[in-house]
Amino acid sequence: MANDPQRREAIIQALSRSSLDALAAFSPSSVLLLTGYWPVMGASFAIFTREGVVCAVVPEDEMELAQATSGAELFPYCPASLHHLTPFTESLTDPLKGLLARLQIHSCRVGLELDSYAEGASYAPANPAHLRVTPLLNACSPDMEVVSAGALFRALRAVKTRAELALIEHACRLAAAGFLEAKTAVVAGRREDAVAADIQAAFSRVANDGFERGGGLFFCMSGPNSYKASGAYARTRKRVLEPGDTVMIHANTFGDGYWTDISRTFVAGAPSEQQKRMSDAIAEAREAALRAVQPGAPSKVVDAAARSVFARHGFAQAFKHGAGHGVGFSGADANAIPRLHPQCSDPLQEGMIFNLEPAVYLDETSGMRHCDVVACTAEGARVLTHY
Amino acid sequence: MANDPQRREAIIQALSRSSLDALAAFSPSSVLLLTGYWPVMGASFAIFTREGVVCAVVPEDEMELAQATSGAELFPYCPASLHHLTPFTESLTDPLKGLLARLQIHSCRVGLELDSYAEGASYAPANPAHLRVTPLLNACSPDMEVVSAGALFRALRAVKTRAELALIEHACRLAAAGFLEAKTAVVAGRREDAVAADIQAAFSRVANDGFERGGGLFFCMSGPNSYKASGAYARTRKRVLEPGDTVMIHANTFGDGYWTDISRTFVAGAPSEQQKRMSDAIAEAREAALRAVQPGAPSKVVDAAARSVFARHGFAQAFKHGAGHGVGFSGADANAIPRLHPQCSDPLQEGMIFNLEPAVYLDETSGMRHCDVVACTAEGARVLTHY
Repeated sequence: MANDPQRREAIIQALSRSSLDALAAFSPSSVLLLTGYWPVMGASFAIFTREGVVCAVVPEDEMELAQATSGAELFPYCPASLHHLTPFTESLTDPLKGLLARLQIHSCRVGLELDSYAEGASYAPANPAHLRVTPLLNACSPDMEVVSAGALFRALRAVKTRAELALIEHACRLAAAGFLEAKTAVVAGRREDAVAADIQAAFSRVANDGFERGGGLFFCMSGPNSYKASGAYARTRKRVLEPGDTVMIHANTFGDGYWTDISRTFVAGAPSEQQKRMSDAIAEAREAALRAVQPGAPSKVVDAAARSVFARHGFAQAFKHGAGHGVGFSGADANAIPRLHPQCSDPLQEGMIFNLEPAVYLDETSGMRHCDVVACTAEGARVLTHY
Repeated sequence: MANDPQRREAIIQALSRSSLDALAAFSPSSVLLLTGYWPVMGASFAIFTREGVVCAVVPEDEMELAQATSGAELFPYCPASLHHLTPFTESLTDPLKGLLARLQIHSCRVGLELDSYAEGASYAPANPAHLRVTPLLNACSPDMEVVSAGALFRALRAVKTRAELALIEHACRLAAAGFLEAKTAVVAGRREDAVAADIQAAFSRVANDGFERGGGLFFCMSGPNSYKASGAYARTRKRVLEPGDTVMIHANTFGDGYWTDISRTFVAGAPSEQQKRMSDAIAEAREAALRAVQPGAPSKVVDAAARSVFARHGFAQAFKHGAGHGVGFSGADANAIPRLHPQCSDPLQEGMIFNLEPAVYLDETSGMRHCDVVACTAEGARVLTHY
C-alpha cells in the first residue's frame, strides 16, 4: 500500500527487475496490493509507476474508504448519474485518459493481472471490470503496451509486509469470536444452517473492529458433509447434526481486503476412538509441518512433513489435498504462493503467509480438518490463529 | 435453465434471431441463465446451441449441486489434484476441447458475455475465469469465432420465466425474516454492526429453506450513514444509533443464484414531523410508480411517476438516483434491464423483474428508502416483497 514503505519498496524493486514501466490494476485485490485501498464495486483503477508514483481513479462513493486506507493520489469520478446512463467503463474513460496523459506513460509497457486466479468477493455484486481491461486501456492510450504480469503480481502478493501481517493477524483474531461461539453452538439435533447462523452472528458483532469493512462467511458441515469438505469450497446444508458426528466449522473472513482461511472440527458429543486417532494424527501432522517451515525450505517439504505423519497413522489416502496455500489477498486460492503441495518446489520466504490444513477425510462419513493461518518468519513458523 | 421449457424457448428464439450458433458462458450468473445451475467457484463452462443442446463442464466438487438444479448434460472434470498443480484453466482445456468437438461447433460463431456488468458474489472467493475466455476458447477450438453478445445476454436476463419468478419470489419471502428481526433490533444506543449482526442471523436461519445454497448480506446505516446510502453500495459501520435517527436496513440476498434487492427504513424512536413527511412522500411515490408499471410503458415513465410526487412534496433534489433497475440474476446492477431511469425509454415487458426504490436523502443527515422487488405482469405491477 502507498503508505506502507515496505510494500512500496517491494513494488519498486519488482518493477526495476522487470521490463515494465508500471503496474496497473482493476481487480479489487490488485488495487489493494498497489494502494492499500480495497475497492467495493470493482470500478476503480490503480497504477504504480517505476518512479514510485501511485494513483487511483475511484468512484465518488468510495472516496471516504479510499482516503481512510490509502496514501495514493486519488482521482474521484462519477460512474453514474441521473443525467447519463452508461456502463461505468464509459464514465471511467475520460478520467483514465487524463491520468495516463498526466503520468506521460503513453508508449510505455504496463503490466496487469490478466491470468485467472481467485478474487475475494469485495461485495454482494461487483463489476468484473477486468473483463474489458485491454480494450479500455487501449482506447485511453493507444500506444500503451498492455502486458500480462500475472507471475509478478502473484510473487508480490505472496510476501506480506509487516503492516499487512499485522492486518491479517488482526483479522484472524476477530474470527476467534466465531470459533468460540462454535463451542456452544455445535449440538446434536440442530441443523447445520442454524449452527452456522449463530456462529456467523457472533463473528459479525466484532467483524468491523479495527477495520473500515470487516466481514466474511462461516460454514458448518457435519457427518458426510464434513467428508465432502475436502472439496474446493465449503457449503452449509440443512442436515441435522447427529450424536457422534464430526462437525467442521470453516471460515473465510476479511478486514479491508485482507482474508483469513480457518477451520476447526468438533464432535457432537464424546469423540469415538477413531475420532481420537484422527485428531491425534492431525495434531502431530500440524506440529511436524510447523517445524518444517523456514525461509528457503521448498514448499513441498512442509506438505511432506504432514503427509508422512498421516501415512504412519494409516491415513495416507485420507489426506486428500495439499497442506496449504498462500492466504491474505484472497481467502482460498489453491494456486496462491506458497503452494504447500507435493509437486511444488518453490522455496518459502520470510513474510509469506499461508494456511496449514492437515486433515483426515474417512469412509465418506466424516472429515476432520484443523486449518491455521501461519506466517513464515526468520525464526520459522508463527501461527496467527492460536485458538 | 435446461429443465425450464420457457427459458429454453427464450434462448432458442434469441439464437434464431441472431447470427450466432450458440451461447456460451464462464461467469456464474450466465451459466445459471443457460443451465439453471449456479457455479460456486467460477470454474464451470456452459454452452447452449441453436439446436437446443445444453451442456456444462463442471468441477467434480460441484456435480451434486449441478445435478440438483440443472437438466443440462453435465461433464465433470477435476480442476486440481495431488498429482498436478496447474491453474484450473489448464485442467479445463481437455474436457472443453472434447465437448466442443462432440458438439461439432468448430467453425461456428459463439456469443459470450464480454461486456462489463455486476456479477453477484457466488462464494467468498471465485475465479474470474472470464478473464481468459477468448484465449481459452481459441486454444480449444481455433476456428471458433468468439463474439461479444452482451446485449443478447442482458435482454435474456431481463425477462424472467414463471419458474424463475417463483424462485425470486421465494428468495424475497425468506428475506422477510431479516426485516422482521429489524423491527426489534433497531434501538437507539446500539451500534450499526450489532444491529446488522442480529438481522443477519435471523435471516441466515432460514436462508437455505427451499434452496441448495441460500445466503446474502444485510446492512445497517443510521443517521448520516443513511444519507450516504444513496451511493452505489451499502456499508455497515460502527456508528451508535441515536434517538430520532433514520435507520436504513438494506439487503441483497440470494437463493441458488437468484438475487433480491430490498430496503426498509426505520426510525430509532418516534418519527419527527419531517420524517413523517419523508415517509408519506415515499409511500405516495411508490404507489404512483407501481400504477405506472405495465407492459409496453417506457421505463422512464415509472421513474417520472415517482419523481413528480417527490417534486410536489419539495423533495425533488432529495431523490438522488433512478427509481430502479433489473434484479434477479444479480442483486444490484444499475445497468440491468429494465432501467427505471430518466434517460431510458426501453419498454417494460411482461416477466421483467426490478427493484423499485423511492427514497429521500436530506441535509446530509438522514436517508429513507423503501425498496421493493416488483414483477411486471400482464395486469401491471406485482410486488414480491409485501412486508
